[in-house]
Amino acid sequence: MPKTALIVYAHPEPTSLTCQFVSETIQTLEQRGHTVLKSDLYGMGWKAVFDESDFPNRINKDRLEFIQESRNAYTTNQQTQDITKEQQKLLAADIVIFHFPLWWFGMPAILKGWIDRVYAYGFAYGYKDEGNHYRYGDGIFKGKQALLSVMVGGPEKDYAPRGINGPLDELLFPITHGALFFPGFDVLPTHAVYGTGKLEIAVAEKELAAWRYRLDDIFNEPPIPFRRQNSDDYQDGILSDHICSGESGQSIHIDD
Amino acid sequence: MPKTALIVYAHPEPTSLTCQFVSETIQTLEQRGHTVLKSDLYGMGWKAVFDESDFPNRINKDRLEFIQESRNAYTTNQQTQDITKEQQKLLAADIVIFHFPLWWFGMPAILKGWIDRVYAYGFAYGYKDEGNHYRYGDGIFKGKQALLSVMVGGPEKDYAPRGINGPLDELLFPITHGALFFPGFDVLPTHAVYGTGKLEIAVAEKELAAWRYRLDDIFNEPPIPFRRQNSDDYQDGILSDHICSGESGQSIHIDD
Repeated sequence: MPKTALIVYAHPEPTSLTCQFVSETIQTLEQRGHTVLKSDLYGMGWKAVFDESDFPNRINKDRLEFIQESRNAYTTNQQTQDITKEQQKLLAADIVIFHFPLWWFGMPAILKGWIDRVYAYGFAYGYKDEGNHYRYGDGIFKGKQALLSVMVGGPEKDYAPRGINGPLDELLFPITHGALFFPGFDVLPTHAVYGTGKLEIAVAEKELAAWRYRLDDIFNEPPIPFRRQNSDDYQDGILSDHICSGESGQSIHIDD
Repeated sequence: MPKTALIVYAHPEPTSLTCQFVSETIQTLEQRGHTVLKSDLYGMGWKAVFDESDFPNRINKDRLEFIQESRNAYTTNQQTQDITKEQQKLLAADIVIFHFPLWWFGMPAILKGWIDRVYAYGFAYGYKDEGNHYRYGDGIFKGKQALLSVMVGGPEKDYAPRGINGPLDELLFPITHGALFFPGFDVLPTHAVYGTGKLEIAVAEKELAAWRYRLDDIFNEPPIPFRRQNSDDYQDGILSDHICSGESGQSIHIDD
């Protein structure tokens, strides 16, 4: 069945490996009859900084409180057009794929600013104005898939389980678990390419082929088994005693 | 002995708790005779997006490669003025304190864009043009202190060792270990205030007093004991077998 994909990407150079991956994604999905929506953040000149100009009609003009203004702008349809457009694309998508280079162990600022601004109160958090009721498995993106396709400059060994940078999945946990699973996405395992600083063409071709192969069955992939808040796994936001007893940290929030 | 502090902060609202903390920091340190430099990112209209305009004289005009252009701009003194100014402040500082609200489990985009742009090749990475030789304990900021002062909207329990968001220190590891320890800073434990979404004035006052108290002896604080790359702890970027044998993840990079 044809699906809709949203590709959000953050690299200004059309010949970069990031953009080669984007082209591969678009071509592969379109060839299979899917619809592809694009958010080329650099190309769009995306405004990265979340500020008062995002609230043309402030509820409180004396003091800027982001959550209050975000809630007001979202619920009264007074958001800026660039934000509503992205929200509409998100709502239309069955899968959202983020393509970006890893900069200082995280997203480029332009992509972080897309999250900061598009993820309005009432939309990506405070869903249905119910505080933290709908999160981590429930939320506006429930039933949709999301995944990160990350270009990593450094060598894979530095991101290995005992590598000096820390494991890539842990470095990206604030995004996969925090920015994607929180508002309800089924988050697929991150697709990383390492050593992109000096990748030979033949290796790049192999990486692109591996990505194309993965895309082929992407809609049937099982997500990372993050634990759902609204299950017996948690009691008031704390992992229940009987699960991973005595353990702590990120890993206990994955049911594997 | 009088020291120099650089305060980098990211909130546009002067009455926000973030800005109250900034004021407290400035006042406390100046009262003790220290010099305070400021980078008010919103106030400065800091350009968050790292792009081709950061390289007025490109070495390669056909294809934008950030590392190559960053290296060239830095080593040939052709960086933009806003970047060199921040680098000079960093070099002048004995301590760098970052004040920001936690947005989607990370820095606001404007602050991430400060890292992305100011952390040039040859400066914060590729130091002395020696690849990865100087990092994680060695680097341009060796001998300087840094710390994060973070305003967290949600309740502390959600960030507890078994809290649903994951522990705050693990969420911030890409910043503390990745963006601060990597270029050589001694990183002090993060100073977090929770529940800032609805903080009563009396509680805010208490939090400000606790921060003022901590600042009093900040220059003597021991850093987080992240393991140094150029020690026996690592072999070619991998933690040596005899340390935390059988373990993996972020925690093994801390010697506690």
